[in-house]
Amino acid sequence: MLTTAPRLTPIVAALPATIPFVGPEALERLRGVDIAVRIGANESLFGPSPRAVEAIRNAASSICLYGDPEGYALRRAIADHHGVALDGVVLGAGIDELLGLFVRAYQAPGEIAVMSEGGYPTFAFQVSGHGGRIETVPYLAMRNDPQALVGRARAVGAKILYLANPDNPTGSWLTATEQLAMLDHLPPDCLLMLDEAYAEFAPADAIPAIDPADPRIVRFRTFSKAHGMAGIRVAYAYGAPETILPIDRIRNHFGVNRLAQLAAIAALGDQDHVASVVAAVADGRSEYGRLAASLGFEALRSATNFVAIDVGTADRARAILAALLQDESVFIRMPGVAPLNRCIRVTVGRPEDRARFADSLQRVVSRLS
Amino acid sequence: MLTTAPRLTPIVAALPATIPFVGPEALERLRGVDIAVRIGANESLFGPSPRAVEAIRNAASSICLYGDPEGYALRRAIADHHGVALDGVVLGAGIDELLGLFVRAYQAPGEIAVMSEGGYPTFAFQVSGHGGRIETVPYLAMRNDPQALVGRARAVGAKILYLANPDNPTGSWLTATEQLAMLDHLPPDCLLMLDEAYAEFAPADAIPAIDPADPRIVRFRTFSKAHGMAGIRVAYAYGAPETILPIDRIRNHFGVNRLAQLAAIAALGDQDHVASVVAAVADGRSEYGRLAASLGFEALRSATNFVAIDVGTADRARAILAALLQDESVFIRMPGVAPLNRCIRVTVGRPEDRARFADSLQRVVSRLS
Repeated sequence: MLTTAPRLTPIVAALPATIPFVGPEALERLRGVDIAVRIGANESLFGPSPRAVEAIRNAASSICLYGDPEGYALRRAIADHHGVALDGVVLGAGIDELLGLFVRAYQAPGEIAVMSEGGYPTFAFQVSGHGGRIETVPYLAMRNDPQALVGRARAVGAKILYLANPDNPTGSWLTATEQLAMLDHLPPDCLLMLDEAYAEFAPADAIPAIDPADPRIVRFRTFSKAHGMAGIRVAYAYGAPETILPIDRIRNHFGVNRLAQLAAIAALGDQDHVASVVAAVADGRSEYGRLAASLGFEALRSATNFVAIDVGTADRARAILAALLQDESVFIRMPGVAPLNRCIRVTVGRPEDRARFADSLQRVVSRLS
Repeated sequence: MLTTAPRLTPIVAALPATIPFVGPEALERLRGVDIAVRIGANESLFGPSPRAVEAIRNAASSICLYGDPEGYALRRAIADHHGVALDGVVLGAGIDELLGLFVRAYQAPGEIAVMSEGGYPTFAFQVSGHGGRIETVPYLAMRNDPQALVGRARAVGAKILYLANPDNPTGSWLTATEQLAMLDHLPPDCLLMLDEAYAEFAPADAIPAIDPADPRIVRFRTFSKAHGMAGIRVAYAYGAPETILPIDRIRNHFGVNRLAQLAAIAALGDQDHVASVVAAVADGRSEYGRLAASLGFEALRSATNFVAIDVGTADRARAILAALLQDESVFIRMPGVAPLNRCIRVTVGRPEDRARFADSLQRVVSRLS
């Protein structure tokens, strides 16, 4: 029997079994804890728009029907929202899926993508998973280093340059001017994949105006963060139609579920909800800043719904993370790579989540010192 | 600008713009019709289990949280349902996504997959999309030809043999004995991908007992058909852990949405609903058989929730399809390849859907003759 087992392709056979993120449910099973404060995955505890919830409830019994494989109504709403062409918008079941599709379309096996060292690991997972190579550039003072990124891309002939802006896991951002300067020096044939998952939380000058006809840039947006809809899986990429349309040749056409499409349309129509979440998150970031300072730590400036807190050493960050989970039932995360791993990364929860986190962190730091 | 546009990989650049299925919503936009009877995509108009609907409504506001990326609770329920190991079950956002993942894992570019000529087009879409080659074998008397399939797989050294059983688009089935005989002659290193999307509708002798430790077979099941949950996107593959586990290296870990996981658990616990749908569908198949005979056509025997009706010629099938849509607002589909394209393919709807379809078909056939 074993001599006739199917064989993995060389690319998949060479992949490690590691995955980018272990979910909080898996941590609960592995550690035997019940997580009480879930502020590790940058989920919005402020919740989705009530209009989105209503759309789901009203349509729940219609799930016997497939969603529109062209996602026309939602794409139309998104195109109008950004003032771009319908053919320049493609939907996906989360940004993660879209990252995979663009990597598959624009980076052949053996070709190179450039990103920051310790940046969003799911991008690297997608590149490796399709047989591509990753070249990384260190962060500079806990920010993406625009000149080094574009310089490395030129030096290695990168096919893709990945930039998360605002950035995950640091929460930092590049200005529009810095990003446009990167475009000026992008190597030939290189696609800039601009992951703007946290765009709604960012100051206006972090979001560049980019010519929507420029085929070199794809921007990624999601309903998972400010819209509070991580669990329903809907995101989009937009850019020049010539860059976006080929994704239709490979995407999972019926993959964006019916309820997600309806809920996203409702959410996009409720900008007041987004504005209230953004304001509440700004308050929470300030609160985390004061909490960090009170413990002698430094909170990095953030343009997202989370804050990276520099606790001084990776050992201390790991110890805090473990103690918060095991002793306090508080789930947070931390970056995996130096020097970012001096930080813990905490999602901005509601006031009650933050109060519990503050108490827990104070206790844990006190015990550890 | 154009000289610096990103370039598609050779595999994606060579792909056609055609896609497997145009959705009914797109047909409505293209043809300017409002579809009144939607019986073309094998959606279950009998609807989902009320328990699944309740699960969705109760959890609607929790979509701010990601679903469990390991889908533990649902996989546990599925493993128990089939009496297989937890590590032998992997979830996906529909069978289509899972077909893509297994092709990507087990068929390198340039390698060959074998399927029936005119079989489920999304499998071929996934193979081509990953740079693989497809070899097809004709249907034999409107059924998959097991000996020819396995013979071709041996002759060409296929890495994957795809079999839909019960079959789409014919509705036919192979017996368990016929399938086990295929296994006996499967070439070395070849994976049998057994697409059982319609298994619940099939007679017991169409579903083989296969050693769950045999690494050569992966079976695909979905909540889209008998469970009436096409729109929420949840399916699974199961087989030997050594064949299933490597999919974790490449799958979209957060891709199966939270509501789908909860609804699928509820649906799996409501086998009475499945049984009632299966019984109602059997009634509808008989009714379609009588309708076809009354018009001088032959309904193929079906083990699914649809019936292929042989109307004699491809031209007549195309004319009926077009007239049903344009004149009667009835959406059905038909196979794209000879000789199957002598058939129209009609989903078994509720009694009221079938009554409207019967009236419409009679009018259309009368007008065309």
